[in-house]
Amino acid sequence: MLGTKLYAPGDVRIEEMPEPTILKPTDAIIKLAATCVCGSDLWPYRGLNQVEAPLNMGHEYCGTVVEVGSAVTSVKPGQFVVGSFCLSDNTCPHCRFGFQSSCMQREFMTGAQAEYARVQLADGTLVALDEQPVADLIPSLLAASDVLGTGWYAADAARVQPGCTAVVVGDGAVGLMGVLAAKQMGAERIIAMSRHKARQDLALEYGATDIVAARGDEGIAKIKQLTNQIGADAVLECVGTADSMKQALAVARPGSMIGYVGVPHGVQFDGQKLFFTQAGMLGGPAPVRRFLPHLLDLILSRKINPGKVFDLTVPLSDVAEGYKAMDERRAIKTLLQV
Amino acid sequence: MLGTKLYAPGDVRIEEMPEPTILKPTDAIIKLAATCVCGSDLWPYRGLNQVEAPLNMGHEYCGTVVEVGSAVTSVKPGQFVVGSFCLSDNTCPHCRFGFQSSCMQREFMTGAQAEYARVQLADGTLVALDEQPVADLIPSLLAASDVLGTGWYAADAARVQPGCTAVVVGDGAVGLMGVLAAKQMGAERIIAMSRHKARQDLALEYGATDIVAARGDEGIAKIKQLTNQIGADAVLECVGTADSMKQALAVARPGSMIGYVGVPHGVQFDGQKLFFTQAGMLGGPAPVRRFLPHLLDLILSRKINPGKVFDLTVPLSDVAEGYKAMDERRAIKTLLQV
Repeated sequence: MLGTKLYAPGDVRIEEMPEPTILKPTDAIIKLAATCVCGSDLWPYRGLNQVEAPLNMGHEYCGTVVEVGSAVTSVKPGQFVVGSFCLSDNTCPHCRFGFQSSCMQREFMTGAQAEYARVQLADGTLVALDEQPVADLIPSLLAASDVLGTGWYAADAARVQPGCTAVVVGDGAVGLMGVLAAKQMGAERIIAMSRHKARQDLALEYGATDIVAARGDEGIAKIKQLTNQIGADAVLECVGTADSMKQALAVARPGSMIGYVGVPHGVQFDGQKLFFTQAGMLGGPAPVRRFLPHLLDLILSRKINPGKVFDLTVPLSDVAEGYKAMDERRAIKTLLQV
Repeated sequence: MLGTKLYAPGDVRIEEMPEPTILKPTDAIIKLAATCVCGSDLWPYRGLNQVEAPLNMGHEYCGTVVEVGSAVTSVKPGQFVVGSFCLSDNTCPHCRFGFQSSCMQREFMTGAQAEYARVQLADGTLVALDEQPVADLIPSLLAASDVLGTGWYAADAARVQPGCTAVVVGDGAVGLMGVLAAKQMGAERIIAMSRHKARQDLALEYGATDIVAARGDEGIAKIKQLTNQIGADAVLECVGTADSMKQALAVARPGSMIGYVGVPHGVQFDGQKLFFTQAGMLGGPAPVRRFLPHLLDLILSRKINPGKVFDLTVPLSDVAEGYKAMDERRAIKTLLQV
């Protein structure tokens, strides 16, 4: 089958490799309906994460089960499934507490930018649909696997409430999903920080009420002005850089929460400054599995359309172009046709 | 009148000074019923905070109103009042959001280790009792001004829920009040980290179910063992050092909250480590004013007895000994008789 490997920064290749097989009784093998490139794939692609090359790439997935291990009971061959990028048993105390992304058996999905993939801990990770989805829903179902679930977690961790004012820092795919999530959770005002026309338009379509194109001190001042100098009730930090975190902290009102879902790179907090800012913080890899059943309901009933976040579609064989387009910000997010 | 000034580290003096007067229409002057020494007073006393000396000391207070400014409407001379160490208008958006300690007009109380004190923003800061309290309730009412309110905030910020397991890091007066608060909020298990017999006893009396005397890696291992390797649902960090914060982070289960109320000194967080710990954080100066009405009810109905945290009582004229006893950990907290 075809699968994707990263050999070095900037050097991502599609190549022939053996199909995955069941290695543990709790595994499932799925045939991908579609897969995609994640913003977090760009960290190693840009050489910003040390990795052991070659690396099997891809952690977002949906598709049809073709084989299951002997211990798997909740999904069976032929079913269409969506799973989280965090593999979890969904039974340990952390899972039952709603934090499947810190499951005691947690693994991170790899190798999903391929025709077939092995999903560990299949019972705890995968959610099966009652029937095969119609084709136009595939992008949205795929989005639920990570980018939608991560934006949703940002809003959840930031404790977005009906009627509140939310600020979304970052106009990447996750930030746009954060806008969608904040809207679904009833935020009255959603201020999206975005400098790019296509992303601004999508943010508005997903429910943003205000766009702030300025960054740095100017961007902070603009948000302060929009909120009568109060700041936001909830802040979704969807980037992970020192600059974006600074923005988030500066616009969070005292007592608000910052949900941060961009893996921090070069971010340090001074305890005393954070104390007097009096902003709450909750981050981490998103417990997508907690949200999946609800998100799938919203998608299948066409109440949300997260799939629109894919503004570039290429065949899996063109995966290198998919990465390049995102790296150069020509695409928000690339869907890979399998 | 007599009042307290810090001249230099270790050099705290009681001296004659003019009685305070109304300086703004929103001021009130109160005659102290009692006052006390705060753990945070020890930071400048130990030379760990840069301060401009001489410094008027004392921010915990209760007593009888003797005079009010022309704009004050909610309290009047003769009433017994308790106020927060954070002076707030209680009407600005931050106050209405429940974070009076970040009031847009916030001032910090000073000069309360004295016979009389000036309280700014009296309407927003003070809560009047219906009648004069009986004498034996004065220590508890005084405690509500800061140490109880701060321990309460730690539990509130840590989102202590009925049935949960809470860990309290720090056995100072605030930590002990954190134990009391967690108990009131329904925590089923309260693990207090304490090495001192007198404090352990008081923690148990206030509702602690377990005492962990070990610190560092050993203390962490002990708490992990007590919680079946899960960690705590809620963590109250009541010290403010790098070591205490490290303990807090190590015992917080993923998805839990750490309420941190010790002013951080030398505490730094690495963003990526905090992210993968997946512990939430909310700290800052306690919005005591939010809790005061409820706390006064609990005290006046004798449902709680926070005043027991004062294990040393000296006349105001012996304030220097009051500081020294706390500095040397001979006393948990010193009450100053006025």
